[in-house]
Amino acid sequence: MGEFDLIDRFFKRPARRSPLGIGDDCALLAPRPGMQLAVSTDMLVEGRHFFPEADPESLGHKSLAVNLSDLAACGAEPLAFTLALALPRADERWLDAFSSGMRSLAHAHICDLVGGDTTRGPLNVCITVFGEVPQGEALLRSGAQEGDDVYASGTIGDARVALEVLRGSLHLPPVVFADALGRLERPTPRVALGQALRGIATSAIDVSDGLGGDLQHVLRASNVGATLDHDALLPLLACRDHVPELRRLDFVLGGGDDYELLFTAPADRREAVQQASAQARTRVTRIGCIERKPGLRVADSQGRYIRHTFASFDHFA
Amino acid sequence: MGEFDLIDRFFKRPARRSPLGIGDDCALLAPRPGMQLAVSTDMLVEGRHFFPEADPESLGHKSLAVNLSDLAACGAEPLAFTLALALPRADERWLDAFSSGMRSLAHAHICDLVGGDTTRGPLNVCITVFGEVPQGEALLRSGAQEGDDVYASGTIGDARVALEVLRGSLHLPPVVFADALGRLERPTPRVALGQALRGIATSAIDVSDGLGGDLQHVLRASNVGATLDHDALLPLLACRDHVPELRRLDFVLGGGDDYELLFTAPADRREAVQQASAQARTRVTRIGCIERKPGLRVADSQGRYIRHTFASFDHFA
Repeated sequence: MGEFDLIDRFFKRPARRSPLGIGDDCALLAPRPGMQLAVSTDMLVEGRHFFPEADPESLGHKSLAVNLSDLAACGAEPLAFTLALALPRADERWLDAFSSGMRSLAHAHICDLVGGDTTRGPLNVCITVFGEVPQGEALLRSGAQEGDDVYASGTIGDARVALEVLRGSLHLPPVVFADALGRLERPTPRVALGQALRGIATSAIDVSDGLGGDLQHVLRASNVGATLDHDALLPLLACRDHVPELRRLDFVLGGGDDYELLFTAPADRREAVQQASAQARTRVTRIGCIERKPGLRVADSQGRYIRHTFASFDHFA
Repeated sequence: MGEFDLIDRFFKRPARRSPLGIGDDCALLAPRPGMQLAVSTDMLVEGRHFFPEADPESLGHKSLAVNLSDLAACGAEPLAFTLALALPRADERWLDAFSSGMRSLAHAHICDLVGGDTTRGPLNVCITVFGEVPQGEALLRSGAQEGDDVYASGTIGDARVALEVLRGSLHLPPVVFADALGRLERPTPRVALGQALRGIATSAIDVSDGLGGDLQHVLRASNVGATLDHDALLPLLACRDHVPELRRLDFVLGGGDDYELLFTAPADRREAVQQASAQARTRVTRIGCIERKPGLRVADSQGRYIRHTFASFDHFA
C-alpha cells in the first residue's frame, strides 16, 4: 500500500462543508459572511501523550477531540480539519481503527477532513482544526471581570486518576476504572456548550493541563485573581470515593487531560448559564469567583485558605 | 526554559494580519469579503525530510517554504500559519537559529505565526499555512485542457543532485555544489508567480515529489495526457554540465524537492504567461503540451518518444 492509496482508502471522504477537500495542493474553506475563522493545532506524540500500546480507535478519537475542545473554548462551530500523520509503517489494521475513531467524531460534529500529509517516521499525530465564530463573539481568555463566577463543565480529574492506575500508583475497582479510562482515552469536547455560552461567558479555556494551571492562564490574561471553593471542587472528581482523601484536590486542580470548559460569567447571568448548560446537555458547576487581587486561592466553607500549588503541565519544565 | 517561555521567546510576535494571534485556545482569522481561505499542511520528519545534522536556520526556512509553495500552487496570497513542533530537548541555540530562519521567510511574505503547539518528542515540524484567494480563482490540478502548453518555473533537479552528493553517489565542484545545496536547503516558494498566474494558468501544482510524478497528478485530475520536449527539459537542470549525461533526464523528471511551479496555460496566452513571469521576476520555461491521449511521454526534437518511467516519491511504497 503506497502513500496515495493509504490516503484514499482511510482518509478521503467527500467534503460537505468546504468547496474543495483532499487531493489538491490546498483545501479551500469559505467562512460565511460575518464569520471569523478560529484555528487551533495540537500535536500528539507516542510515549508522551499516549502509550505505545494505545488503542488506535481511541487515539483517532482523542486526537480530534483535543482539537475540537479548543474550538469549544472559543465558542466556535467546527467546520473542517487537516491531519498530518507520521507512521513507523503502514499497518492496515491500525489505520483502519485509527481512521474509524477519528471519522466517527468528525461525523458527529459535521467537521470535514479537508487535507493533510502522511510520512514515515516515529508515530506523531498533528491536527489543525477550523471553526466559525461570529465576528467579535469568540470567547477569549482575557475577558474575566472582578465579581464574575467561575464554572467548570462535566467532571474533572478522573482522566489523571486513570493515568495513575495505568502507571501502577493507584488501584480502582474495575467498573470505576473503566469509567475513568473512558475519560482519559475518549474525552468529550464540549462543543455545544461553548457555542451556547457565547454572549454569556466573559472568558473561557479548555482544561488540558490541569484546572489550576489553566485557570491561571485566564487570570493572567484578564489581569485578575480568583478564589475557588474547596467544597465545590471535590465533587468534580467522579471517582472521588475510590481515591485517597489527601490526593483528591490534587487530581481536580492538577490532573489534566480533562477537556472540559472552564469559564467565567457575571453573577447576574447565573440563570443564562444554567439555560446554556441545559441546552447543551452538559453539567456545569460553579466553583468560585473572580477577584481583583491577583493569584489563585482555594478556600474552605469557613473562608480559610487551603495551601496548594497550581503547577501546570509543561512539556519542557 | 519551560514550554511557555520557549513559545514567548522564540515564536511569539505581534500578529499583523489576523485579529488574534498566539496565546489563546484558538487564533482568529478574518478573510476579506469575497475571498476563500486556502489551507495546506506539511510535516517534516528528521531522517526522512532532512538529515539529523541539518542546519537549523535552513530547516526553519524550508519548513515554512514547502508550505508557502502549496499556497503558490493555488495562486493564494499568504496570510498566516501555525507551527506544531516536537523537540527532543529545548536547545536554545538550535531554537534561535530555527525560529530565525522561519521568521525571515514569514516576514518576507507578511505571513503571521498565529498559533501552535510544542511538545517533547522525536524532532518533527508540522506547519499548517493559510492564504487568501478570490472566490473561484484558485488554481487547481484539474483544469488542464487539450492543446494547453506545459510550463515549469525556475530550475528543476538541482536539489536532488545535491542530495546525491550528500549521499556520496555524485561529486560536484564546490561552487556548483553550493548552489545545488541552496536549492535543497533553502527552496524559494513561487508565491508571486502563483498569484500572477491567476486567470491565465488552467492548472498548477508545485513540484515536490518530482516533475514527472507531479505532472501525472495534474494529468489524472484533468483527464488528459501530455508530451514533454526532451530538449526543453534538460536546460532546467542548472548543474547539468557537471552531471553524467545519462542521469540528467532522471534528475529533471524524478528529482523532487524543487518547489517550483508546474502549470498549464492555453497556447494563445503565451504573452500573458511571459508578462506574469516578468511581473513575478521568475523564469518560466515551456516544456511540452497537453494532449487528449492519457499518459505522460517525452519526445526528442524529431518527435520520437524516449523511454522513461515517471515514478513519484512515495513515503510508503
